[in-house]
Amino acid sequence: MSRKILLLPGDGIGPEIVAEAVKVIEALKARHGLDVETDEAPIGGAGYDAAGHPLPEATLAKAREADAVLLGAVGGPQYDKLPRELRPERGLLGIRKSMGLFANLRPALLYPELAEASTLKREVVEGLDIMIVRELTGGIYFGEPRGIREREDGQREGFNTLVYSESEIERIARVAFDTAMKRGKRLCSVDKANVLEVSELWREVVERVGRDYPEVELSHMYVDNAAMQLVRAPKQFDVMVTTNMFGDILSDAASMLTGSIGMLPSASLNADGQGMYEPIHGSAPDIAGRGVANPLATILSVSMLLRHSLGEAALADRVDAAVGQVLRQGLRTADLAAAGAPAVSTREMGDAVVAAL
Amino acid sequence: MSRKILLLPGDGIGPEIVAEAVKVIEALKARHGLDVETDEAPIGGAGYDAAGHPLPEATLAKAREADAVLLGAVGGPQYDKLPRELRPERGLLGIRKSMGLFANLRPALLYPELAEASTLKREVVEGLDIMIVRELTGGIYFGEPRGIREREDGQREGFNTLVYSESEIERIARVAFDTAMKRGKRLCSVDKANVLEVSELWREVVERVGRDYPEVELSHMYVDNAAMQLVRAPKQFDVMVTTNMFGDILSDAASMLTGSIGMLPSASLNADGQGMYEPIHGSAPDIAGRGVANPLATILSVSMLLRHSLGEAALADRVDAAVGQVLRQGLRTADLAAAGAPAVSTREMGDAVVAAL
Ligand SMILES: CC(C)[C@H](C(=O)O)[C@@H](O)C(=O)O
Ligand SMILES: CC(C)[C@H](C(=O)O)[C@@H](O)C(=O)O
Repeated sequence: MSRKILLLPGDGIGPEIVAEAVKVIEALKARHGLDVETDEAPIGGAGYDAAGHPLPEATLAKAREADAVLLGAVGGPQYDKLPRELRPERGLLGIRKSMGLFANLRPALLYPELAEASTLKREVVEGLDIMIVRELTGGIYFGEPRGIREREDGQREGFNTLVYSESEIERIARVAFDTAMKRGKRLCSVDKANVLEVSELWREVVERVGRDYPEVELSHMYVDNAAMQLVRAPKQFDVMVTTNMFGDILSDAASMLTGSIGMLPSASLNADGQGMYEPIHGSAPDIAGRGVANPLATILSVSMLLRHSLGEAALADRVDAAVGQVLRQGLRTADLAAAGAPAVSTREMGDAVVAAL
Repeated sequence: MSRKILLLPGDGIGPEIVAEAVKVIEALKARHGLDVETDEAPIGGAGYDAAGHPLPEATLAKAREADAVLLGAVGGPQYDKLPRELRPERGLLGIRKSMGLFANLRPALLYPELAEASTLKREVVEGLDIMIVRELTGGIYFGEPRGIREREDGQREGFNTLVYSESEIERIARVAFDTAMKRGKRLCSVDKANVLEVSELWREVVERVGRDYPEVELSHMYVDNAAMQLVRAPKQFDVMVTTNMFGDILSDAASMLTGSIGMLPSASLNADGQGMYEPIHGSAPDIAGRGVANPLATILSVSMLLRHSLGEAALADRVDAAVGQVLRQGLRTADLAAAGAPAVSTREMGDAVVAAL
């Protein structure tokens, strides 16, 4: 029985970049024996337009049945005025939570061909290869109680709850240690244990899990220092593990160090090996529909999908190699092209990767 | 009656760098008519050593009576095993809270003489001059309830509360708008309003306060994007305002952009105009006692103290000019010296500033 990939193009540039990723999937089916079926469903603003909700029930049902999900991006200015629970991001947060996708893997990798795109000096970022493991279904993103309430003195106050249980910390720590074992065997856990009780427990549990991984060199760093060290000397890191909120901030900073966020994929995995894969960049409504978006992060998300959810490492390597080849050929979408240099379109880039497969 | 400055040298390099700042204060008294009295008290690890507590009562009493406080730094490995409430950071958090120092001003300024010290390309950071206004006595740092508790299923969970009231947001917003009025009249408020209710209220109140400042151009940015933009194009920012936790992370990242955190002072102000001034760097236990620490951030903290708490703008300008002059003379402590270039000692740097006053 062939495995199922659910496509969630979403909003903005989402449909354009997912279309190029689909070409890659089709080519792998036609020429390299990949046995998958694809289906498609709306999410985010597109979900709201189609079914009145950013995560339509039918979309979630299909996602649960799929072996893997490939997401484009969600969000757009036309949805900004909607009530909170109908906004596109709710679709993204909802599918993460409903599918239990607690482990978010976000690589920050500098492509040697693109070293000049970084705002950092070449020697600081050359060879950069960090994997950030972010907890994705807990912490302050989902903690209760939360809301805005009126106090006795008549003033309103907003409140949110940061909460992590031992088992939540333990399972993300295991993913991080396992990831470190497959890489440089160094893991840095980021917290704010000098201020937060949650971080104290986090640190204790990460230490405990670490005893099962004697080969991994574990260190701890405060989040403010981690933000500084990412700017000062990012190559000191191999794998980093942290909470939902700190991971949101640090992974965005780390990806920007590479200067090529149009290149970076991500994976969000649950305990059953199901995964959702998406570029780390957003829906870029300003350039949507113009055929200039960079599809490579989405194509590389297909590679992660093949590797992590379908066990097709050889095909994943093939996709990675094809992307490397088009970069070496000098093909650049507008986000990567040096000022004044010629740029290829979204479609041309996708076709070039297919040709290089 | 002369005004009072309380010196809190603290731990690690704290005493060395505060000693150089004191030389500057003494020179201003002797030669430029500054009328102040100084006193000294222990805080942090030094407070624990002297009185069994990181914020001894006598220290707090003196701080409350002073017109301004000059702090070195707190913390050191010898205190790591102490129970949480006795650790050096508790002294710092305690004095902030007890004195009501809700407004933390943290400049990230690139000294033209030191442009090469940044890990970012020169054109990205040249002329960088950001002021981060961080809320310092609220948010998740102090929110209740907090702790580690056992759940019904026998597992423990850590929990912290992020909470801001309208009046807390309003007063920090006013400081930020006032700061923007004295600078480039652009204010970027950083939140995570797509996820947190606290941020929703934050955004609403900042907007409302903004109506009193029609000349200031107000924008809002999500914290993850802000962390990216600081790396991508930091010069887009003039003044930024944000919560305690986000401010902790972003201000450290921003200061590291300048490559010279040994140069950056900070001010923490309360509603009565009292202030505590300190370098943004830490206690650097690894180099403590060796006479190599950079005293300029502490000396520039004296300048901020003169300006904000004593109304001595002319003397503050004089200190700033003296620091500029020693940099132009080529004097560099070890943290700033190019690899292999000669470095001056903490004391030599302090003496040079005094000579240049
Ligand atoms: C859109 C937003 C809710 C989301 C998050 O904060 O998790 C995004 O920033 C991300 O990192 O995927
Ligand atoms: C030492 C620590 C508690 C403190 C903080 O987090 O506020 C420090 O990082 C700072 O920014 O002054």
